[in-house]
Amino acid sequence: MKHEDLHRLLCDVACGRQSADSAERMLSGSGFTDLEFAKVDLARKQRNGYPEVIYAEGKTSSQIIGIIDAMREETVNILCTRLSSEKFAAIKAAEPDAVYYELARCALINRADVVQTDSYIAIVTAGTSDIPVAEEAAVTAEAYGNRVARVYDVGVAGIHRLFARLDVIRGAKVVIVIAGMEGALASVVGGLIDKPLIAVPTSVGYGANLKGITALLAMLNSCASGVTVVNIDNGFGAAYSASIMNHL
Amino acid sequence: MKHEDLHRLLCDVACGRQSADSAERMLSGSGFTDLEFAKVDLARKQRNGYPEVIYAEGKTSSQIIGIIDAMREETVNILCTRLSSEKFAAIKAAEPDAVYYELARCALINRADVVQTDSYIAIVTAGTSDIPVAEEAAVTAEAYGNRVARVYDVGVAGIHRLFARLDVIRGAKVVIVIAGMEGALASVVGGLIDKPLIAVPTSVGYGANLKGITALLAMLNSCASGVTVVNIDNGFGAAYSASIMNHL
Amino acid sequence: MKHEDLHRLLCDVACGRQSADSAERMLSGSGFTDLEFAKVDLARKQRNGYPEVIYAEGKTSSQIIGIIDAMREETVNILCTRLSSEKFAAIKAAEPDAVYYELARCALINRADVVQTDSYIAIVTAGTSDIPVAEEAAVTAEAYGNRVARVYDVGVAGIHRLFARLDVIRGAKVVIVIAGMEGALASVVGGLIDKPLIAVPTSVGYGANLKGITALLAMLNSCASGVTVVNIDNGFGAAYSASIMNHL
Amino acid sequence: MKHEDLHRLLCDVACGRQSADSAERMLSGSGFTDLEFAKVDLARKQRNGYPEVIYAEGKTSSQIIGIIDAMREETVNILCTRLSSEKFAAIKAAEPDAVYYELARCALINRADVVQTDSYIAIVTAGTSDIPVAEEAAVTAEAYGNRVARVYDVGVAGIHRLFARLDVIRGAKVVIVIAGMEGALASVVGGLIDKPLIAVPTSVGYGANLKGITALLAMLNSCASGVTVVNIDNGFGAAYSASIMNHL
Amino acid sequence: MKHEDLHRLLCDVACGRQSADSAERMLSGSGFTDLEFAKVDLARKQRNGYPEVIYAEGKTSSQIIGIIDAMREETVNILCTRLSSEKFAAIKAAEPDAVYYELARCALINRADVVQTDSYIAIVTAGTSDIPVAEEAAVTAEAYGNRVARVYDVGVAGIHRLFARLDVIRGAKVVIVIAGMEGALASVVGGLIDKPLIAVPTSVGYGANLKGITALLAMLNSCASGVTVVNIDNGFGAAYSASIMNHL
Amino acid sequence: MKHEDLHRLLCDVACGRQSADSAERMLSGSGFTDLEFAKVDLARKQRNGYPEVIYAEGKTSSQIIGIIDAMREETVNILCTRLSSEKFAAIKAAEPDAVYYELARCALINRADVVQTDSYIAIVTAGTSDIPVAEEAAVTAEAYGNRVARVYDVGVAGIHRLFARLDVIRGAKVVIVIAGMEGALASVVGGLIDKPLIAVPTSVGYGANLKGITALLAMLNSCASGVTVVNIDNGFGAAYSASIMNHL
Amino acid sequence: MKHEDLHRLLCDVACGRQSADSAERMLSGSGFTDLEFAKVDLARKQRNGYPEVIYAEGKTSSQIIGIIDAMREETVNILCTRLSSEKFAAIKAAEPDAVYYELARCALINRADVVQTDSYIAIVTAGTSDIPVAEEAAVTAEAYGNRVARVYDVGVAGIHRLFARLDVIRGAKVVIVIAGMEGALASVVGGLIDKPLIAVPTSVGYGANLKGITALLAMLNSCASGVTVVNIDNGFGAAYSASIMNHL
Amino acid sequence: MKHEDLHRLLCDVACGRQSADSAERMLSGSGFTDLEFAKVDLARKQRNGYPEVIYAEGKTSSQIIGIIDAMREETVNILCTRLSSEKFAAIKAAEPDAVYYELARCALINRADVVQTDSYIAIVTAGTSDIPVAEEAAVTAEAYGNRVARVYDVGVAGIHRLFARLDVIRGAKVVIVIAGMEGALASVVGGLIDKPLIAVPTSVGYGANLKGITALLAMLNSCASGVTVVNIDNGFGAAYSASIMNHL
Repeated sequence: MKHEDLHRLLCDVACGRQSADSAERMLSGSGFTDLEFAKVDLARKQRNGYPEVIYAEGKTSSQIIGIIDAMREETVNILCTRLSSEKFAAIKAAEPDAVYYELARCALINRADVVQTDSYIAIVTAGTSDIPVAEEAAVTAEAYGNRVARVYDVGVAGIHRLFARLDVIRGAKVVIVIAGMEGALASVVGGLIDKPLIAVPTSVGYGANLKGITALLAMLNSCASGVTVVNIDNGFGAAYSASIMNHL
Repeated sequence: MKHEDLHRLLCDVACGRQSADSAERMLSGSGFTDLEFAKVDLARKQRNGYPEVIYAEGKTSSQIIGIIDAMREETVNILCTRLSSEKFAAIKAAEPDAVYYELARCALINRADVVQTDSYIAIVTAGTSDIPVAEEAAVTAEAYGNRVARVYDVGVAGIHRLFARLDVIRGAKVVIVIAGMEGALASVVGGLIDKPLIAVPTSVGYGANLKGITALLAMLNSCASGVTVVNIDNGFGAAYSASIMNHL
Repeated sequence: MKHEDLHRLLCDVACGRQSADSAERMLSGSGFTDLEFAKVDLARKQRNGYPEVIYAEGKTSSQIIGIIDAMREETVNILCTRLSSEKFAAIKAAEPDAVYYELARCALINRADVVQTDSYIAIVTAGTSDIPVAEEAAVTAEAYGNRVARVYDVGVAGIHRLFARLDVIRGAKVVIVIAGMEGALASVVGGLIDKPLIAVPTSVGYGANLKGITALLAMLNSCASGVTVVNIDNGFGAAYSASIMNHL
Repeated sequence: MKHEDLHRLLCDVACGRQSADSAERMLSGSGFTDLEFAKVDLARKQRNGYPEVIYAEGKTSSQIIGIIDAMREETVNILCTRLSSEKFAAIKAAEPDAVYYELARCALINRADVVQTDSYIAIVTAGTSDIPVAEEAAVTAEAYGNRVARVYDVGVAGIHRLFARLDVIRGAKVVIVIAGMEGALASVVGGLIDKPLIAVPTSVGYGANLKGITALLAMLNSCASGVTVVNIDNGFGAAYSASIMNHL
Repeated sequence: MKHEDLHRLLCDVACGRQSADSAERMLSGSGFTDLEFAKVDLARKQRNGYPEVIYAEGKTSSQIIGIIDAMREETVNILCTRLSSEKFAAIKAAEPDAVYYELARCALINRADVVQTDSYIAIVTAGTSDIPVAEEAAVTAEAYGNRVARVYDVGVAGIHRLFARLDVIRGAKVVIVIAGMEGALASVVGGLIDKPLIAVPTSVGYGANLKGITALLAMLNSCASGVTVVNIDNGFGAAYSASIMNHL
Repeated sequence: MKHEDLHRLLCDVACGRQSADSAERMLSGSGFTDLEFAKVDLARKQRNGYPEVIYAEGKTSSQIIGIIDAMREETVNILCTRLSSEKFAAIKAAEPDAVYYELARCALINRADVVQTDSYIAIVTAGTSDIPVAEEAAVTAEAYGNRVARVYDVGVAGIHRLFARLDVIRGAKVVIVIAGMEGALASVVGGLIDKPLIAVPTSVGYGANLKGITALLAMLNSCASGVTVVNIDNGFGAAYSASIMNHL
Repeated sequence: MKHEDLHRLLCDVACGRQSADSAERMLSGSGFTDLEFAKVDLARKQRNGYPEVIYAEGKTSSQIIGIIDAMREETVNILCTRLSSEKFAAIKAAEPDAVYYELARCALINRADVVQTDSYIAIVTAGTSDIPVAEEAAVTAEAYGNRVARVYDVGVAGIHRLFARLDVIRGAKVVIVIAGMEGALASVVGGLIDKPLIAVPTSVGYGANLKGITALLAMLNSCASGVTVVNIDNGFGAAYSASIMNHL
Repeated sequence: MKHEDLHRLLCDVACGRQSADSAERMLSGSGFTDLEFAKVDLARKQRNGYPEVIYAEGKTSSQIIGIIDAMREETVNILCTRLSSEKFAAIKAAEPDAVYYELARCALINRADVVQTDSYIAIVTAGTSDIPVAEEAAVTAEAYGNRVARVYDVGVAGIHRLFARLDVIRGAKVVIVIAGMEGALASVVGGLIDKPLIAVPTSVGYGANLKGITALLAMLNSCASGVTVVNIDNGFGAAYSASIMNHL
């Protein structure tokens, strides 16, 4: 609750425009629907700019459907991430307007067109195997009203591919760099642009790659400034942050 | 064997009320049934306040049945944790009164009502995906005669949900906080209550979550005082300790 | 702010007993003194049962003195932990009533007698080298009004020493077990008592001890139930939790 | 070199406005001064928006002076980070206009006023011990022309302190959250704002804190969306990225 | 080749009792059969006291059969460890005298009675779930002519079970202690005996158990002296070493 | 683009032999085929001496086929590594000349004889279980025109097997040593030869082997000089480097 | 207390030869001297074959002196390990017969000749830098009445040095192998002998050596059978176990 | 001993040209000088192409002098690495011709000109702080008769500096790339050359750099082929291997 809202609320109570009881509810309990297994956060959009997102891992299909139903009235483009195709099938039966993005392992429900930004987010990958993470980012960014430019497979082993697409990258307002193995692409791109760069390590690789820990550590130690980092394979999180920045 | 028991035993021997042989047996070997593959600890309730609990992982169904049979005479509410539904099916055939708690992956055998506490244990989770661990805790706590209040899905991403249920949490005699990912809920609750808080990290998350190690480390470093921690996903252990505290 | 307090506050505003402005201050900003470099939490005792404790590491002597001065009026037995003797000398000059506990590396300022519990906390160590951590726990527990029983150097390499003091341990309402190296003492004691056991791993040892990580991991995996764990060398935290339990 | 610059350069060569030789130099070797031990990157401001920053660790004082001299002509507010007071003394002798920020362990050389943003960056710390990292961030941000609001010591152990300053935090265009121990503050703030949040883990803490790894991991796994992370104690890097965002 | 053998060989060559060619073969290449995919070490028994053992993991059934065939002529009680029941079925078809030990996941081929020691090896486990590792040790020890005493499920959570069997353990010439979770049993037994103790950590447990790393680290840091350690789940290796010691 | 090529290109533009537009294309975008999901690097052979290699993990069969089709015109012996037999079946249907090396999990497409070196690469393994990695190396080396000598199963547990084949190893121009478990073979061979040695740790082993990390660390700390190391199980990478050295 | 002793004690009580009180004391508290800061274990020699050893790290000089005084009456060759020369100076003042072994960082107090074994323990090091650990082992073994053969600096980088001393190694009853870096010497020696081998990893090395963890892991994964391992730099522990074996 | 040498030796014995005794010495013990604390390997040059190198860490000055004296007669350019200036002062007194390379922390004794290669080794660093490791490599390479080209401070944050020196790098026969932080330079250079590349991670950096582990892991996972890796800060080892390759 914002400072001015609080002030107004208390004034309303003071002058009798509102009962103490209802103010109490607003101050101490409003803003979510309680499904017992979940407390759906209906105030998130107001607070954070975007509605709650459903993280499907570890939730049953019926729990996910319950959450969707609680959100549907107030929310368009309900995003559900880390969703297996099996769970999606069950959800589709209950929510016929749900659309699945297979590469991205995401679904959108109650879809609606949202205003698109003029500026765009560049989503850059080092390799072909990083594309699923990139698509999770792209679906998220588009659902939040961002234009997206995909620049895939421009890793440093063939750095001329990167230079050939540098104009697209430099033209973006925010850049997401997605790479596994040693994650060097983040540093190289970081040294060439003057925009915010969000680095996403992926679990692509084997052995001393440690399921993405190596790329994560490398990105955190980037010799290029201006690089911030999110969790391994977290395409959603990168796009969420990028969308905030793209709307600044 | 307690000091006073030892004293009495030795006096009994000294004055002939008991033979040296039987005293020796009591001192050096009593208190369990030897099944070769297991030495069922029948003295545990007397020593620790609660009977032995059967940890099913790594045991065969027939081993588990053997242990149950050895315990049944002296023990009600035999608790079996980390039990798959497959193994339970085999056990149910031999122990028809066995009841399975699917979410909790626990079974109770030889169930009986036990005296319930007036005070209660609050079991609080950060998310919906943490519920299986919470239910393991709840089943355990209830089997040991504790009232339980479930407060699920009040993680800090929507902290107003927590404040809305703070009264329930503050009313408890002991609080269990269960969270995966970064486990921040333990610190936040810890800063708001004046009762013992047992934190349970869960393996919910991915990537740099390291299967729960991140939440575990975070809880161990809580800036709030009064937080103690158990192993990852160890709902049982948290409830066991909480039950001891709730009965103080 | 408790539910009933909130209710009352809002009623007071509603019926004019209090202005909206003062209520706003209470709701959104009260409860601390702002020193710029620190916001001293004066509401902690009311919220958590104990006042704020000063963690000296990373703070300058003058910052610590500033915090003490802000607390002194409302707080007795101001506890300052992880305090080097060099910093204490500087503090002593400004706060002449400060007392230093060298082994424990703690200071108490504005000391006062507090009501002592009848029940006591047993503080048990595996070795002589664990005593500094044990003393941090003991000073904390005593400052908070607990009786303490010290049982030092009863590690499992000579387990008869433990059995010889088992009566003292079993007589406690709460037991703190402090051990480095492999930390086995926690499990052994845990198997012999029916009270809450808080295990404190210490950094005593070398090589594969990993500065206490080994004892920490071992305690988290205790085969005995009823064991909860705090951070490495965190004698203060163990005593804080133990004091809450001892006052239940 | 930007696409349009490359195009223009080649046209110039084609039509004889520029020799092939000079074009070659521009394409393959321009943009730095070679001091043998360092190749000072004079094109960085043009490429990244900000001039090269001198990371003092592992460099000798005379190397640092050499780099400053190479930069001085073209750069104002030359920033030197991770600089000990000993090295600064040596530098001050050669560069009399150098100014040292002791808490931040930074120096500025060839200082000049730069245009300040209207919007501001909020720099928030969990504790007093995190202030050195915060000041590194603040000095950097101010050198780059950003207004800064400092909100120190509002960690979740006393969460009302945070709520009392929430207006300041919500008013910022970019928020930097700096925390050691379990780093929970990042998630809590992340759940309350709709602006980019850059989380900086610090090495404040001990034991299972693992010199900041715990806070780092926790922040990477934040349950709140919109959080990106930089290296442990990297106040500079956070401020660099924040400045880019604040100037979007 | 032993010193005296070398001396004799060279004398034989010097005085013409043996050709230089055959001596060269003996010095540089004898002692194994080359199957291309394996060089079966037929000299191992002479060198190490025991014949080569077949580690089945990562080998195909036909490779294993080839190695058995190469060994059969010179070796009785060919031991094959870490052998799945699927692979055993294929081997049994080719080697009809092969016998499978299911719990131990071992096979013996070309079985023969060997002289048994008078002294025995005690194999002690903390729990029922450790029995597979214990049986690998027992099968190995028996194949090498050792008497074995099994003492299973005497972990420290019910330490009276251990004391009840202490006589059997103290009567052994060598003791193997097998435990997962926190591995405390090794230290406790180590403090009670005056014979060599070989500790085997097992992967029994979950979460912060780290697949046996915790028990491994704990055993390496045992506060009891006289404890040496082998790899996680390495029942074979413990029995091999124990057999050498039992035959001293 | 090499320095002299750049010079020539710019001269050509200057004197009108080439348009600025086409030069721009060459400087900023040539050298690959863009398939959207992949940018096939057709300049790699010219730049690195060998064409791009297809790393199959994380790529779909149809993506792999697309890449092969883009490469086929200009490349013989297209190598595809880490290819499952399932994916190969799909590829074989589209690329009938593809040949699968089952042990090596590699395929070659558009095969052609290449000039073979006189000197050879020795590929040495510690055990039979290391052979799949060795065969990946051997297939790679042979595809690049190297003679190969295989020396398998000469680990240090039976070191006479190594000495018996030392002549073959010493005769090589480059030596690849492949070992799991403790990886000691690399150091022993390193101490006996005067040629470059590339060590490949494998994931063969269990428990404290940590999926090959132990062998990797051991090889990086070899007390023998002249040992360089590649990633765990990276037979391809070792052979690639060895081939470069063998062609020096 | 041994079984037969317990039996006898209880009979004595039963027939009045001993009072219940004194029996109780023997059963529950005998066998140590309580100095408050230490409970000196005077029964250890009887139980484990060797008296308690004083681990000096983390103990003050006066604590050490107190322990020595408590032991002196019953113990010869009191061993104090990990003792700095500074602490020794303080001890020497109080215990004039104390002798310091500088390389080994050990002291012996109340020295006396003990019966020496005919068989000997070979102590083998890979390098010169491992000698301090080797000397800790040698001093310990000699104090316990073992003959010792030192074979230093025979690491595998120059394996002919090892073969030149193989006779000495093979002639021992027990072999201790001490190595840092990659620890390969343990496996090589293990493949050449038929006696118990205790491997001691040392912290000699840098970087990926991880302060001895690499050698530790390597030794635990030795491809040679018959190798057991102790903690990093634990020369004392290796010699203690070796002495038990040498006296079998 | 080479195969043909062995053959010849045995023939000599067979025909009486050599006694069995002297042959035995040659086979089992020749090739080193035994100083008790060190067995100086005088056969290393013959076996490995280069004489033994003295690793100074963990050795006393007098031990180092002893080894130098044992080597001096047969060896020129005795190299001593990881040598502090304090130890060098003591050595200089005994070995007046010793020369110290301060940046490299190396000394050369008994210096002599050796034949220089025509081809050269390029030593490339990412930053100025990596120069000490680079100089260790350069001193080593030059002592072994290699021409060296130093290319310092061309890290990817300013990648145009690298391209400006690419000709020098591409002209080398072997390339050493030295980088700390995220180590990305190795991958970028690896993608641009067709010669062997040896990557040296350095401990330059802080926090999640983990003292060089991050750069090490990154280099092992390089997406560019042809990269092999040595231990952190191991400039010597890289140069040793590079020298072997440069002399192929």
